[in-house]
Amino acid sequence: MIDVYSWPTPNGHKVHIMLEECGLSYRAIPIDIGAGDQFKPAFLGISPNNKIPAIVDSDGPDGKPIALFESGAILIYLASKVGRFLGQSDREKYQTLQWLMFQVGGFGPMLGQAHHFRIYAPEKIDYAYERYTNEAKRLYQVLENQLAHQSYLAGDNYTVADIACFPWARSAANQGIDWADYPNTKRWFDQINDRPAVKKALTVLADYRKPLTDNKAKDILFGQTQYAKK
Amino acid sequence: MIDVYSWPTPNGHKVHIMLEECGLSYRAIPIDIGAGDQFKPAFLGISPNNKIPAIVDSDGPDGKPIALFESGAILIYLASKVGRFLGQSDREKYQTLQWLMFQVGGFGPMLGQAHHFRIYAPEKIDYAYERYTNEAKRLYQVLENQLAHQSYLAGDNYTVADIACFPWARSAANQGIDWADYPNTKRWFDQINDRPAVKKALTVLADYRKPLTDNKAKDILFGQTQYAKK
Repeated sequence: MIDVYSWPTPNGHKVHIMLEECGLSYRAIPIDIGAGDQFKPAFLGISPNNKIPAIVDSDGPDGKPIALFESGAILIYLASKVGRFLGQSDREKYQTLQWLMFQVGGFGPMLGQAHHFRIYAPEKIDYAYERYTNEAKRLYQVLENQLAHQSYLAGDNYTVADIACFPWARSAANQGIDWADYPNTKRWFDQINDRPAVKKALTVLADYRKPLTDNKAKDILFGQTQYAKK
Repeated sequence: MIDVYSWPTPNGHKVHIMLEECGLSYRAIPIDIGAGDQFKPAFLGISPNNKIPAIVDSDGPDGKPIALFESGAILIYLASKVGRFLGQSDREKYQTLQWLMFQVGGFGPMLGQAHHFRIYAPEKIDYAYERYTNEAKRLYQVLENQLAHQSYLAGDNYTVADIACFPWARSAANQGIDWADYPNTKRWFDQINDRPAVKKALTVLADYRKPLTDNKAKDILFGQTQYAKK
């Protein structure tokens, strides 16, 4: 059994989708990041960066339980566990990993900043609004260039790289993206959105997400916790 | 032979250090990101996100050449190639990957934003300055908590997670960090800084880095290219 400590945000959805795609048994345990659950010592013990998602797999690589944080690492772990979604060869595996890293290092964090400065910041700051909106467009164009000549990010096969990028693209409108400018990316998005495992995963913990009452809490949803622990 | 297309920035240094630590034969090919070399079609062919570093290994996993971009993916590739720096067991491998992802998804991109708004932005924007300075402190405190009870990020062994974080910590002062607040992280930093392979790696391409003449060019050095390709 895999316990996933999570919340229905893009990074949470990455792992929910992967668990559904792999057909693994799991329990989703809500960590209400709007209420500060991610700062509780029990959660810090499995997620030292105070972020969701984290997992505890009772059947780790050596048969003992293992706790893991960082959604990108969890995707690699689960892919290796079931032997799927990480390419059909070593070559495809590394091509998948580079596109997974593109999401972890850019498509996630920079779109998170776009959400912040476009929607959640207490005041509109033109410079930052433009900076992250331009970067969002640049990142979608990178996807578009890639998807113009192949079905999925790493080639012909659906992989963890697609699973990682997809949940962030669900908020394209909030990132200043007009899908009309990225037709191949939209085709890719729709194809993933139609997968039964994806549809089911997007319902996981959905009922727990309450309307948020202030901008600070909303921002936390995108992983940009701003509280120095010192 | 491995060709590394790179520049002496934190993300470039990650790969230079790894190549030196692995004792692999390589050629460093300068991609002058201040002059826009990263937008040339030949480079785009191996690095579709227009960022350094990228590698071409003439001896890929199937004996044929392979091109890879994204420094985090390159670190995993090289670690697997030589069978080092990715932990001694599957358990340690995943613990290493989660800390590698911590760098790729947070310690890199958020410190890059701190550099931008603390140093390179054309005007000082208090809100963004505080946002990223606070996040820098939070991230260093995560390292500090981890390094208070172990030698390296993923445990007792030096891994790609340390190699990934170290070059970003070289700019701690620019991120608003006072090392006196993070004594265990400073001990870890000094230990890595003293490694012969690290000393050598930090000289790679160093002579190519010319004084930069404007803020835009400086910002590119930290990977935040702001040019939509559309």
